[in-house]
Amino acid sequence: MLQASVDSSGTRFRPLVVVELVSDAEEETIAWLLRRIKDPQQRGGAELLVEQLGPGVGGEEKENPNIFLVGATVQRLLSGAEDVGLFKEYNDGSMRAFTCCNKHNFTDFTGDGDSFLSMAECQFIIKHELDTLRAQDETHVPGHSQAKLYPGKSIIRRLQSKGMLIQIFPLQELEELKRLSFFWYKKVKLAPQPLDNVRHYYGEGLALYFGFLEYFTFALLPMAFIGVPYYLFDWEDYDKYVIFAVFNLIWCTVFLELWKRRSASLAYRWGTLSRKKAFEEPRPGFHGVLGFNPVTGREEPLYPNSKRQLRIYLVSLPFVLLCLYLSLHVMMIYFVMEGWAHSLHNDNPTFWTGILLFIPSIIYAVVIEVMNLIYRYGAEFLTDWENHRLESSYQNHLVLKVLVFNFVNCFASLFYVAFVMQDMVLLRQSLATLLITSQILNQLMEAFMPYWLQRRRNKKMIRKVQKTRSLQDQELPLAEQVRLEASMSTYLGTFDDYLELFLLFGYVSLFSCVYPLAAVLVVLNNVTEIYSDAFKMCRVFKRPFSDPATNIGVWQLAFEAMSVMAVVTNCALIGISPQVKAYFSESETQLILWTAAIEHGLLALKFILAFLIPDVPKHIHIKLSRLEFESLEALKKKKMLEASELSQGVQ
Amino acid sequence: MLQASVDSSGTRFRPLVVVELVSDAEEETIAWLLRRIKDPQQRGGAELLVEQLGPGVGGEEKENPNIFLVGATVQRLLSGAEDVGLFKEYNDGSMRAFTCCNKHNFTDFTGDGDSFLSMAECQFIIKHELDTLRAQDETHVPGHSQAKLYPGKSIIRRLQSKGMLIQIFPLQELEELKRLSFFWYKKVKLAPQPLDNVRHYYGEGLALYFGFLEYFTFALLPMAFIGVPYYLFDWEDYDKYVIFAVFNLIWCTVFLELWKRRSASLAYRWGTLSRKKAFEEPRPGFHGVLGFNPVTGREEPLYPNSKRQLRIYLVSLPFVLLCLYLSLHVMMIYFVMEGWAHSLHNDNPTFWTGILLFIPSIIYAVVIEVMNLIYRYGAEFLTDWENHRLESSYQNHLVLKVLVFNFVNCFASLFYVAFVMQDMVLLRQSLATLLITSQILNQLMEAFMPYWLQRRRNKKMIRKVQKTRSLQDQELPLAEQVRLEASMSTYLGTFDDYLELFLLFGYVSLFSCVYPLAAVLVVLNNVTEIYSDAFKMCRVFKRPFSDPATNIGVWQLAFEAMSVMAVVTNCALIGISPQVKAYFSESETQLILWTAAIEHGLLALKFILAFLIPDVPKHIHIKLSRLEFESLEALKKKKMLEASELSQGVQ
Repeated sequence: MLQASVDSSGTRFRPLVVVELVSDAEEETIAWLLRRIKDPQQRGGAELLVEQLGPGVGGEEKENPNIFLVGATVQRLLSGAEDVGLFKEYNDGSMRAFTCCNKHNFTDFTGDGDSFLSMAECQFIIKHELDTLRAQDETHVPGHSQAKLYPGKSIIRRLQSKGMLIQIFPLQELEELKRLSFFWYKKVKLAPQPLDNVRHYYGEGLALYFGFLEYFTFALLPMAFIGVPYYLFDWEDYDKYVIFAVFNLIWCTVFLELWKRRSASLAYRWGTLSRKKAFEEPRPGFHGVLGFNPVTGREEPLYPNSKRQLRIYLVSLPFVLLCLYLSLHVMMIYFVMEGWAHSLHNDNPTFWTGILLFIPSIIYAVVIEVMNLIYRYGAEFLTDWENHRLESSYQNHLVLKVLVFNFVNCFASLFYVAFVMQDMVLLRQSLATLLITSQILNQLMEAFMPYWLQRRRNKKMIRKVQKTRSLQDQELPLAEQVRLEASMSTYLGTFDDYLELFLLFGYVSLFSCVYPLAAVLVVLNNVTEIYSDAFKMCRVFKRPFSDPATNIGVWQLAFEAMSVMAVVTNCALIGISPQVKAYFSESETQLILWTAAIEHGLLALKFILAFLIPDVPKHIHIKLSRLEFESLEALKKKKMLEASELSQGVQ
Repeated sequence: MLQASVDSSGTRFRPLVVVELVSDAEEETIAWLLRRIKDPQQRGGAELLVEQLGPGVGGEEKENPNIFLVGATVQRLLSGAEDVGLFKEYNDGSMRAFTCCNKHNFTDFTGDGDSFLSMAECQFIIKHELDTLRAQDETHVPGHSQAKLYPGKSIIRRLQSKGMLIQIFPLQELEELKRLSFFWYKKVKLAPQPLDNVRHYYGEGLALYFGFLEYFTFALLPMAFIGVPYYLFDWEDYDKYVIFAVFNLIWCTVFLELWKRRSASLAYRWGTLSRKKAFEEPRPGFHGVLGFNPVTGREEPLYPNSKRQLRIYLVSLPFVLLCLYLSLHVMMIYFVMEGWAHSLHNDNPTFWTGILLFIPSIIYAVVIEVMNLIYRYGAEFLTDWENHRLESSYQNHLVLKVLVFNFVNCFASLFYVAFVMQDMVLLRQSLATLLITSQILNQLMEAFMPYWLQRRRNKKMIRKVQKTRSLQDQELPLAEQVRLEASMSTYLGTFDDYLELFLLFGYVSLFSCVYPLAAVLVVLNNVTEIYSDAFKMCRVFKRPFSDPATNIGVWQLAFEAMSVMAVVTNCALIGISPQVKAYFSESETQLILWTAAIEHGLLALKFILAFLIPDVPKHIHIKLSRLEFESLEALKKKKMLEASELSQGVQ
């Protein structure tokens, strides 16, 4: 349906991206923005095609009229692909940066190159071109004298930060989406996910997340298989647990190292591995006194780093510490409740008091999730207020804040039970309750709630349209489809999804030697997670812009840090287990020394393994070196040619 | 003297590099080699100037006639500078890759560019051009049918591996050398070394070594200052030692991190920081079955990696383990001797038996040095036999082998004394003896022996020349000077020098909390080391080719690994000290747990510090980003220009 092109103002084009301005935007502003978007590149414009979306079928008054569809000619898209440094498959099978001048040497380039770029790539290019549309001699946005501009400022970012631009989002391809969702989550099967198709539709960042989720699940399978007999046959011998724990620890390391290789393979196949990073623009919300950027020499707001450091160390750090203290306080309340429930059950054990035993854990698990959620808002607010210049630095600070708190909030009680109370039965019970409750809550909050809300909206829209005319095959006309998509929730990136996996990884690895069943539970969760995440991407959220990720970024580090901690906790757990203590009954000192020695040995082994396993598979390494070599040779040849031309010229 | 140009065969040129062939080389081979060196680049030659060195004054028969002087025109050197990607200062103060087309924008470029390149740079360029002089359609070296060639094989490397080429070395600049050595080691002063001049004469690799040596010495000063009162006032309170140890550990980490920043500053100033690495050629000794390199597509010998792995794991590894076992065995013999000396002294203590007490330690120290030396040859032989394709991989395997053995050989006895015998008095004594003896031996072997040998040779040469004609101002004629330099020992790179520093760092850091005076001894040693190393570079060895190093490479890792081990040993030493044990007299378990906890805390602190301190200083980071930004912008502008030209062409 959307594949069809729109006829208006003489040019036919396929709408790719939607720009929504506030409904009360000034005529002058709109005219200026559209002109700048349409202007040819030599005049500093973006040279894109744009037109206003027609009114909806209902024609209600509260509808926003300022919705614009943006597209581009094939030529413009191809030159944009060169701008963003897109990698495509070359005719020798390697991945190379696309250039217009040798476009015919790329494998999929046929005819005019109409179907050379995927829709997600086109949308990414248009977003990049809009983002880099810069003010020239305007000192403010026409019609809004308080929205200041200076030469080189990104227009879209200024409109965004001033609230004049509500959103920019890419349109869905309904046919494609239907096909993708069928293979992805509608068919229950044992085959791997259609990652290439996911990447084709949603881009590399999201496809890497799903790749990691799948890989993580497969990696847990051996643990789960080995864990089951421990649970079924109630093996309490600690020598068996020791073997299990050592296996787990080595497996964690190997799994994380192998993921780097797999991620490099995927990123190579998708062309992001050697893609050059574009120069990073300041984030939309960044503010400061106008000055000259020492790197670009351009005028832009500057904010002294010392001030930011002050904010981080004097406000954010105390806030995080206070939250950690609160979280520990809540934990202590939980233990009081737990003790109270136990004493009630012991005094007068009935069926109901038996159930009551689980209540504190469940309440605590819910409270943890609520605290995580509230803290998340606080952390976002504070990180925003720290006024980071770059999105990447903002993300790093946010991830660090959220990770530390979530780690303490989720695992503090388990650490307390394990090492202070040294009560392995309670540890197992708490672990199971926390794990299961948080999984159920997460799935509910993440997928089903938004889905339910969205379904209501969908039905309303269809009913509205049906009022005015009868619909064939349930498809909405363009104007309605765009408005429907605009009203869908925005997918806020993979942050929360990775965070969830990180916590699950913690549950599996930190206490693996006392609760081997955790791996089984996490595998089960992950399988449903794949389906629910796929479902929410396809049905609940607006299509996100694709994000050319090379790897899973800071999360690799986070998972590795967790696996180091897992070595420490597992060794300590084995050390304090009664069976091992009984073995070293003559000397506790010997026991601790052995535990420490084994721990150090395992840590050393971890680092050696991480060092020995190359991060990039050999065949990809060869391909990358070949490209590098060829570019060096080409440079040399070019120089030689110039030199010989010069010498002939002299003769 | 050598600055003067040589008149021969019509071209006058300044000799830069000496190529020495075997004295019985075939006429045909020599003629072919010279022709290939002189041929213009379009014909695949190196386009350099070359001529045979005249006979010496004595005209003795055993003199090698096949010594050739190589030079080049200024134009050729400038285009070579572009080939090797030399970075020079641009007129805006930044460092940029030199290109001939905008040569006039570089700060030091005046006139023809005669003095633009330093002699060391010219020599490096000539070496690079000679190394990349490749066979064309020759199937073997003319005159040597068994020395096979294939298209693309480096001619010089083949001649080297077949033993036809004895050596290639750069000539000294005697004036320059005299000036450098005056400022470097002849004046005893407290000022820092003339690193920029060292770099100018010897290149970046060596200058970085001397920079590191100086930095290391300065970094030890606080430790030495704090250590002195401990020794003088005989402070035996362990709380003071604990403070000292914690200070040391944090200091080690900070020192290593700050070195990265300093090294980046130096490398930036010297233009090697962002220099692109050239494509690495196979090492001269690499052999295998002829095949096609998957990266370059060129014909070259291939050697299966699996075979190399077999050699490493089935031969090299057992060899290393055997050597380690032998080393431990020797250590046990030392302890028997030590016990024997002690019992002798205790039975009948006289002045002589008092001296006898030190004899075993001294003998052991000498034996350690001898074993290190022998092992070094074994390791080199084995690593050579492992047949690594690249010099860098060869170096890594050699460093790893040598490091592991030297570490165990030097420190095993100290570990044994510290943790098995737990005898702190003996530990202090062994540490002092080992440290002092190895320093004295090293200085002797490294600088004074070769110097003494070289002086004899020098005198002989001068006497020989004086026989035939009287010398003004003691300067030798060119032919004699070149022959004298050819007979000097070859400097084998910074490996042994770094290794020595690494072991010294181990003596200082591993047991710092029992022997604070170690830092003082190492500072004293380093000061003499600076002078003796400078002296040996200027007077003992042939001038080495400069090596465009960006950092100290694998040694940074080695030093960091040592500092991690230092945390472990120091915590353990404090834990087993009687004073701390007395403090925790009620519970040994508590003591060990605390020790382990503090150790983990310190390790975590180390990693956090390493993470928090940026590796590159901010001002350099800004300069690098600016360059990157400018190149991106230039690319964009170029594209824009092409597009507008194209559109105008269409119109």
